[in-house]
Formats: sequence, structure tokens, C-alpha cells
Amino acid sequence: MFSKKTDLAVETRELYQEQKQQEIPGVRVDVTEEGDIKITRVEIFEKKGAEIMGKPMGNYITLEAPGIKKRDKDLFENVSRTLARELSRISRTDTDSTTLVVGLGNWNVTPDSLGPEVTDSLMITRHVFEYLPEQVDEGVTPVCAISPGVLGITGIETGEIIQGVVSRVKPDRVVAIDALASRKMERVSTTIQIADTGISPGSGVGSGRKELSRETLGVPVIAIGVPTVVDAATMANDVIDKMVDAMIQQAHKGQEFFEVLRNMQEEEKYTLIKEVLNPYVGNLVVTPKEIDQLIKDISGILANGLNIFLHPSVDPKDVDRYIN
Amino acid sequence: MFSKKTDLAVETRELYQEQKQQEIPGVRVDVTEEGDIKITRVEIFEKKGAEIMGKPMGNYITLEAPGIKKRDKDLFENVSRTLARELSRISRTDTDSTTLVVGLGNWNVTPDSLGPEVTDSLMITRHVFEYLPEQVDEGVTPVCAISPGVLGITGIETGEIIQGVVSRVKPDRVVAIDALASRKMERVSTTIQIADTGISPGSGVGSGRKELSRETLGVPVIAIGVPTVVDAATMANDVIDKMVDAMIQQAHKGQEFFEVLRNMQEEEKYTLIKEVLNPYVGNLVVTPKEIDQLIKDISGILANGLNIFLHPSVDPKDVDRYIN
Amino acid sequence: MFSKKTDLAVETRELYQEQKQQEIPGVRVDVTEEGDIKITRVEIFEKKGAEIMGKPMGNYITLEAPGIKKRDKDLFENVSRTLARELSRISRTDTDSTTLVVGLGNWNVTPDSLGPEVTDSLMITRHVFEYLPEQVDEGVTPVCAISPGVLGITGIETGEIIQGVVSRVKPDRVVAIDALASRKMERVSTTIQIADTGISPGSGVGSGRKELSRETLGVPVIAIGVPTVVDAATMANDVIDKMVDAMIQQAHKGQEFFEVLRNMQEEEKYTLIKEVLNPYVGNLVVTPKEIDQLIKDISGILANGLNIFLHPSVDPKDVDRYIN
Amino acid sequence: MFSKKTDLAVETRELYQEQKQQEIPGVRVDVTEEGDIKITRVEIFEKKGAEIMGKPMGNYITLEAPGIKKRDKDLFENVSRTLARELSRISRTDTDSTTLVVGLGNWNVTPDSLGPEVTDSLMITRHVFEYLPEQVDEGVTPVCAISPGVLGITGIETGEIIQGVVSRVKPDRVVAIDALASRKMERVSTTIQIADTGISPGSGVGSGRKELSRETLGVPVIAIGVPTVVDAATMANDVIDKMVDAMIQQAHKGQEFFEVLRNMQEEEKYTLIKEVLNPYVGNLVVTPKEIDQLIKDISGILANGLNIFLHPSVDPKDVDRYIN
Repeated sequence: MFSKKTDLAVETRELYQEQKQQEIPGVRVDVTEEGDIKITRVEIFEKKGAEIMGKPMGNYITLEAPGIKKRDKDLFENVSRTLARELSRISRTDTDSTTLVVGLGNWNVTPDSLGPEVTDSLMITRHVFEYLPEQVDEGVTPVCAISPGVLGITGIETGEIIQGVVSRVKPDRVVAIDALASRKMERVSTTIQIADTGISPGSGVGSGRKELSRETLGVPVIAIGVPTVVDAATMANDVIDKMVDAMIQQAHKGQEFFEVLRNMQEEEKYTLIKEVLNPYVGNLVVTPKEIDQLIKDISGILANGLNIFLHPSVDPKDVDRYIN
Repeated sequence: MFSKKTDLAVETRELYQEQKQQEIPGVRVDVTEEGDIKITRVEIFEKKGAEIMGKPMGNYITLEAPGIKKRDKDLFENVSRTLARELSRISRTDTDSTTLVVGLGNWNVTPDSLGPEVTDSLMITRHVFEYLPEQVDEGVTPVCAISPGVLGITGIETGEIIQGVVSRVKPDRVVAIDALASRKMERVSTTIQIADTGISPGSGVGSGRKELSRETLGVPVIAIGVPTVVDAATMANDVIDKMVDAMIQQAHKGQEFFEVLRNMQEEEKYTLIKEVLNPYVGNLVVTPKEIDQLIKDISGILANGLNIFLHPSVDPKDVDRYIN
Repeated sequence: MFSKKTDLAVETRELYQEQKQQEIPGVRVDVTEEGDIKITRVEIFEKKGAEIMGKPMGNYITLEAPGIKKRDKDLFENVSRTLARELSRISRTDTDSTTLVVGLGNWNVTPDSLGPEVTDSLMITRHVFEYLPEQVDEGVTPVCAISPGVLGITGIETGEIIQGVVSRVKPDRVVAIDALASRKMERVSTTIQIADTGISPGSGVGSGRKELSRETLGVPVIAIGVPTVVDAATMANDVIDKMVDAMIQQAHKGQEFFEVLRNMQEEEKYTLIKEVLNPYVGNLVVTPKEIDQLIKDISGILANGLNIFLHPSVDPKDVDRYIN
Repeated sequence: MFSKKTDLAVETRELYQEQKQQEIPGVRVDVTEEGDIKITRVEIFEKKGAEIMGKPMGNYITLEAPGIKKRDKDLFENVSRTLARELSRISRTDTDSTTLVVGLGNWNVTPDSLGPEVTDSLMITRHVFEYLPEQVDEGVTPVCAISPGVLGITGIETGEIIQGVVSRVKPDRVVAIDALASRKMERVSTTIQIADTGISPGSGVGSGRKELSRETLGVPVIAIGVPTVVDAATMANDVIDKMVDAMIQQAHKGQEFFEVLRNMQEEEKYTLIKEVLNPYVGNLVVTPKEIDQLIKDISGILANGLNIFLHPSVDPKDVDRYIN
């Protein structure tokens, strides 16, 4: 129904509201602002809501902090702390339960390298618990991590690799990090979505990912995603919408006719754009020019947030010395 | 006049012809095809042509090889050899004349890193001529290279750095490599433009570059450029044009009205799109998802072509052993 | 018995011969030279030989090509082809059997990054067999690959990850790539060892690796290793040995006394050096300064060799287009 | 006289004292400890001292903080602040004087990449002073930076490039960052030397560097160096020394004879080792295995120290947003 490419629950809801002018049934929404961070908690609590949203029932928490682009270190730290706090609302850690963090995506493609970048900066401790338990500091929990690569690199479904590792490591919880597509350029690298429902098939910047969830892995799966691209067709669509609005406002001659364009079915228009963009679609991405730097910043924020969540007593500034 | 962002002479000419249905006065054009490579030689020989094209008088040679995207190694080699041959048509090398290759662009921004990538793979020999002249192989000419970075990295105008180096090294020729913007996504990483007129101010993926030419450097400057991005506004514009055409063809209701859009002044429409895309414009780039790989491939092709041009007697497969 | 740090069967044998002046019992050795490549095939066929060598019974083939350091591309190709041929002597590939290539080592530590570098350049095909079997070219076999990282990065034993993946993928053969330690600096990046006995515990540049063998994985394991470091204690030891020899030859006064040093038990001397080097030992490595380049070269040679072995009908120069 | 490879004034002095049991004439030394940082200020104030030390007259300040290897972030920050303070003792910055920072070394060779890594993390402001002077914050001074590469990469003497840039930029001060060789492994990445005498010819990890000093550049040159390697011959020599001591202490039979070795002329012994290590010498380096990480850490410390020194009113944690 809402076929424009978005992985964010907040965007699906926005699209619905724009068209229907009402809240989605079976969905509860709570919005708060804390300093420069906007927190939207979407709970899909009924099947009907899940159908409309195209996402499983559960919690979808979104942190929006546009200031991240200005590289303010205090905001970086606040976002990390807020992320840790929101994670601890939907999942609990203790020294007896092991967390496996999975960094999804392709390390050779900048906007898809978010997951591997995050796992690289985590404080990994499971092996210390196993081999040198007396050296474990208080307030640290067992954490291990893997970046399984993508199908084109390994020839193996990401889901298969993770299932294989889970069957050996037997973690109590999986946290999966993924790069997402957004409808809006301003969300790239500034919005973080947490979901306690895992990863749906086909989400993410890389197409064709398999489901990672309690159903497929046998343990709870928390997904953390950040938009790193806008799909080119979506952007073109948004540009046309805004342009038609602008032309009407500017009282261009022929104003009544543009209404035709505005009143076209969304679906029809999007399909037309895709045809026009063909053969690029699926390969083209729109990113800010400084995407390399943005990925570094946001992956640092995610890693810090996870380190605070998973090792509550460790001072964030000392985490680095535990990192390989 | 032709304000849509393009650095390619062939595209400026195309735009002119689309609108005026005739060749640009003061410009000679010669098109040939060799296997999978299309070669367009544009010569601007009169002031009038230079004014319309917005480029100085001189030679602009374009190699187009869409097959590069399929990663065919034979084609890679053919393009390198064709590049070397076209270079030797507009410039001559011998063992008594030194070439300084300048790799323009920002190595931290993937689509702008073409220049530095090329200089990294050149066979550098000037110091051997200077310190171990007896070790110089036949058919090798003195080559040195520098990647001066960009203003945001160094705090120094690229042109100043190059002038400083030129004043010391006193080369007989400068070859400047740069990443360009194209109007067409299919040109990204598949089209190479050679010009014997140097680099114009403000060209390139990075904005605000200074002129590099015989006027500013005192020696001939050959520019080699490859499109690595499409500017987002240009892409949106093209999508809208194609879409309107498509709608008219599909006999949509209101067909006569879309003609309004089609008949809008190019300039007016582009300005409108820019407003709509604001505040992104200038930062947003559209690239193929696999841009990291494409930059590696095309910079290898350029470096090989330059190595063949500058060291005619060295077997390309042995070049690597000369590379630091 | 032969405790000096070496992972190479040819070196263990050399050490034995230096001391005992005879061939190791239960071991067959065959040496040939082909152009600039020396091939030593060591077969341990009796338990006694295995005990003395400290390695399991099986085949150990060593290719030595010191010319690799001169970066001669023809030699690179010859070594790749010889590697492919020697691999096909001890293992057979066909379109019905799947190969899992495992790139051992730490991608953040240059001399330990050989394995991950090799898997990055392989032609991966298993997913094409699975999802687009009609697109599979003739002479291609199903290949998948994984770089599992190291304990400090993942918190998970490498062996566990591989066992997990093997249990899902069910390959017919595992090929494990690893960086080794050598006794001799001249072997770094110029010697390749192939073994059909898998990886022994504790081998490799990274300490504490677990066994990877038919016993632990249930399928044949071919190990391919290349020395990338010399351990600092070993080098110091060799220097002292050579120095003592040199001093005696130079008829230094006190010559008889140096014989004391020469006649010290190897073990005793090595322990002493280790004490002296303490607390560095285990962390210090001796490498050529240009190790970054050497790793790139030799991993390219290995990847090409494996591509030829696994996809016999594909022209090496076209392999790149299959690589993600 | 003191031919063992060291670039550190403190080490030259140590060697002298070991042999002569007295302070070098014409040299003043002041040692203080502040927390975990040892500061040694060596002033060569007479020609005689300069001759013995093999270094020009001037100030050589050494910070030693072995704790850096433990990756303690508080210590990182303390070292940065101490570096800034010591720099401001020997040089003054203000908003009217421009600093050019030069990052010496080869970015493709990990232990030689210190200089380029530091310049990459500096807060560059000269262009803001020039083009947007109204946007300059208080307490910021004009800074520009360049990493000129090495002879093998550019074909141009580093000194020539810097002279060319200095002639254009006309800075009031040059700060040159360089990777050094040390005699002692424990100094690698934990010792920082500041000198107000510039860079001497032939110093640094890369051999054959030209002099950078007030004489060659016309403005004061501050050199900041950090040992990143130990030369292999030096290490072997130290091992032998320590080993002989250890053997004597352990009352090994033949104890009197080892005294021969101990009493050999330093020079004679070093020459012997070099012969023995030949043909490796000059190429072989000994580094900690985790050198990649150590370079990142120490270059961050240097960049922060320079940012504090050059932009006294900017909060270090906000520096990042000024960086490219």
C-alpha cells in the first residue's frame, strides 16, 4: 500500500496521515522532545495496525537529532545516552546473559557500511568472561559481535551465517545494526530507529535481506537502523510533488492543470518515475557529499550508546582501551 | 546560458543542439567509433564558439565506453591505449621534458578521490633521472606527481600549492586529473574528457576550484576529467522532462496541459527545482551504489593510459614494480 | 623439541637436518625447480615423522619464489598457476561440490590481514548456483567465503564461527588461508605452504588459534599459509648465531670462548633470549618496511591461484567482474 | 660517534653518559615528572655540545608517557595539554601569524604515516581568515597544512615541495611532524620530541629527508617527532648486550669469556651486526604488532595538542566540527 521506499515506522505513519488525515488504527504514538532530540515511540499493538504499517507488532522508537550534522560533541554524547536509555526500556542486560551484536551490510559500499563500522567499535567481552573471568570488571556484560558481510561477498545468506553462529554461541539476545533507506534527505545520519521486532525481509540499503527475528533465531532480536541513503526514485517523486505545489502557489499559468499531477494516484506516479529512471533504479542512491564522514560519526554514536547500554558501569571514555 | 551543471563539452553541445537544432558556430566536431569506444573530438576554434560553450578555445576529446561498467578487462586495456594515443595527439613527451601530474580532489570523499587515486598508481621517475640517471630504462620520461588536497583540508588554494611546486620543479607540462559532474548518470565512470585548455575555474565535483592553465602556471596544462557524480537538481530535472514526455505518450488525460511544463523555459524550471531542493543543493550527489568500485576501476584505466603515454616503451604489466 | 617459532614444514625439516645431519624418519621429501619457483613436497607418512615434525601426517607443499619481492607480474602469474596446479593434486573440484574459503586473521593488523584480503578477491559463486543456476558459466564451481575475524574482535572462537557456518552451508571442502611466522626474513611474502591436514592449534601470526581439520569440521581442510612476519626472538637468535660464526671466522681474540655460545643448547639459548626480550615477546614483530604492499601482492597471487583452481574455465583477467 | 640509529636527543645523551659517565659539555638538562608524564628539557647551548650530540644548538623537549599504550583517555588528554604548553614555551601564536603544519612521511607505510595522520585531524582555518573573516571565532589562529608525500611517491624532494608552498603561503612558522626511529621498543608511540631547530637531514623513518629549518625555509621550524619503529640492527644489538649481562649474572660457565663480547667496541659490534643482518638492513623494522592502532592513538594526541596550542580558546571536544 505504501510502496515508497522507507524502512522507518515514523515515515510510514506520516504517509498514512498525509493521505487519511487520521491516526492508524491499532497503533499508539507518543512523542517527546528532550533538548535537541525528538523521541517518537510507536507501538503497533493490533494486527490491523501491523497490516497497514507493513511491519510486525511491537515497539518502534525513533530518535531524531538533526544537529548531528553540525558535529556537536555534546549532542553526540546525549544521543548515545538517550539510545542506551531507550534500549534499556525494551531489553534488559545482566552479567549472566550474552548479547550477540550483528553488523549487517557491505563494508565496501560506504552508505551500507554502518553495521560493520559499529561492531568495530564495540567493547567485546565474551571471551574475557570465558577465559579470564577474574579479570572482568563489575557492570560489564558478555558481548560478542560479528559482521557477516553480504550475499555478493560471501555467497552465503546473511541469515544462514547468523543462524550458524547463534547455534554455537547461544546468545540470550541479538542486536542487529543496519543501514536504512529514508524518504527524506534530512534524516540521513540523524535519525535512529530501534525496534524490538527484529529485521524484516527486504529492508535495508542492501536489498534482499532475510528476516532476523525471534522466529528465525530463537532469541529476541533488537534492530537498530539509521537511514544512510534516499532512494533516487523517492527523491525525484518528492521533488515533483514539491514542485507542483510551488508552481500552483506561484500562480503559474495553467495552474488548474498541475492539479492533475497532484491528484494522480501516488502509486501510479511512483511507478511512472521508476519507469523513467529505469534502468538505474535499485542502483542509484542519493547521499550527502560528505557521506564518508557522516557514517563515521553516526557509527561512533551507535557504538557508544551500545557500550553504555551493555556495560553500564564503564566510563564511555575508557571504552576504547577494551577495543581491539 | 547553459546553466545546468555539466563539465563536459559534449553535453554542452548536446544541450545546444536540442534547443537550436544546429551545430554551434565556431566549433568543429568529429565523431568516430572504435570497437566499444566512441570518440568525439570537439574543437572550439573561434571566440564565438567559446562564448556559447562557456569554455576556452581548444581541443576537447571525449572517450565514451559504457562497457566499462561491466568490468571487461580487455575493454579496460583498450580504453587505456586509446587514451594514451589521444593524449599523444595533443601533446608530445620525450626524455628531456618533465611532466607534473596533479591529482585534484578530496581523498576523503569517494566520488572526489579520482585524482589522488590516479597519481597513486603512476610510474614516478623524475627522482631516478635526477639521482640515478644510469638506471633509467629507455622509453621512460621524467614524471612527478602531487595530490594537493582541497581548500577545506589544507587551508591553501589548490592553485597556490601547484604554482609553488611548479616554480620549484619547473615541469614542461602539467597534466591535471579531476572528477567532474555530468548531466547523465550513464556517463558516470564511463566517459573520459581530455582538454588541452587546462581546468576552468569552478569546474569539478568540488566547487570553487581555481583556474589551472598556461596563463596561471606558465606551461601547457592538459586536463583529464571523468564524471563521477550527477548533481541532484540536474537529475530531478531530467526525470521531470522524461516523465512529462512519458505522460503525454501514454495519452493521460490533461495531456495538453503537460505541454505547459514541457514548454517552460529550461532556466525557469531549473531554478524552480533548485528552490525546491534547497537547502540540499550543492551537497547532494547522486551516484551509483557501487561508486567505490567504479572509482577504483576508472582510476586504474587512467593511470595505465598515462603510464603508456608517458613511458611508451614500458610494458603496462610491469609498471607496478615501479610504483611506490 | 624444535620450539623456535616456525609454521613451515620445510623449516622444521631444515632445523632437524642442521642438527642431526640426516632426513627425518617417516618423511618423504621431493624438491623440484620450475623457472624461478622452487617446489618442495614433504609427505609425512609415518607417526614417527609426525611426532618429530610436530605436525599431523599428510602432505605439505611449499612454493618458494624470492622474485615476488621484485614485483614481476609474469612471476606473479606463474606462481598463481603453480599454486592452482599443486592444489588440484591434493584436492579435486567439480560443479557438484561446494568449497568454503575461510580467511583467517585480523584485518586491522597488516601482517595478519592476509586471509581477509584473499577472500575479498575471490570469485564467489555459490549464491548464483542457488538463485540463478541458468546464469552459471561452464567450468565454474560453487564457492563461498567468510572472514571470521579474531577472538579479540568478535569475542567468539574462530573455530566456533566456522563450525556454525559449516553446519549451515555443508560445504564439501574447506580451504583456510592464514598468515604464518617464519624463521627467515627472506621467506616473508615469498613462500606459500599448502597442507592437506588443516590448521594446527596455535599456528599463525595470531596466537591461540583452534584446530581446523576434518576432525573438527567433518570435511577435508586444505590450509594455505604464507609467512608475513618473523618473530623478534627468532630473529635475535639467528643474529646471534650468525654473529658468533662471523666472530670465529674473523679470528677474533677469545675465539675459543664463543664456541661456548655456539654450543649452548638451542632451547636454553632461545629461552634466554625470550627472557631478555620480555616483556615484548609475543607482541613484537619484525617485518619489511613495505609490508602493506607485500600483503597486497601476495594476497592477489593467492586469490588468483584459488580462482584458477576453483573455476578452471574462467580467464583470470575476467575474474574481477565476478567480484563484488 | 654515536652511530646507532636514534633521532632522540635524550637517547644520544643516554648513550654518552653510559660510556663517559658524565654530562655532555655545552648541554643543559632539566627533568621533571608531572603525573604519568616525564618531561626532559635538553638545551644545547654551545657548539661543542652540538658536535657531540650531532644536532644543532637549540631546545629539545621530550615527553615520555609509557601509559599511552594502555589507552587511558585521561592520559591522552593530559599529554595533549602538556604538549600544547611546552610548544607555547618555545613559540608564540597569535591571530596575525600563520602556521603551516607539514605532515612528513609515507601514508602507504603504516609506521611512516604519522605526519599525514596528524595533518588530517587538525583544525584548518587559514582559508576562513581569508574568505570569511567575520566567521572566525576568537582565540583561533590561521592554520594551514600539507602532507607532501615522499620522494618515491612524488618524484619531488619533500623540501622542494615545502619551499614552493612556503614561498606562496608565506607562513610565520612551520611545524613539521615526523615519525622517528628509537633505540628502545618501549619508546615506540609513547615518547614525543619537540625541537625548535627543525628537521636534520637524514632523520626520520624514511631515509634521505632533506633539512627543514630556518636556513632552508626562512621562517622558524618546530619539529615534533614520535618514534614508531626500532631499527632491527639496533634491537639485535640491545638483545645481545642484555643477553651477555644475563649470562654473566646467571654464572654460566665461561662467564669470563662473555666479558670479551661486553667489552667489544660498540662501533665494532654494531658494524658486525649490520653485516650479519645484511642484506635486510634499512628495510627491516621492528614494531609492536598493534602498530596500526598505536599510530591512530598517538596521532590523535599530537593533533589535539596542536589544536590546543594553535587555537587556545576552542574546546578540544568541539574541534572535530572544524575538521574537513
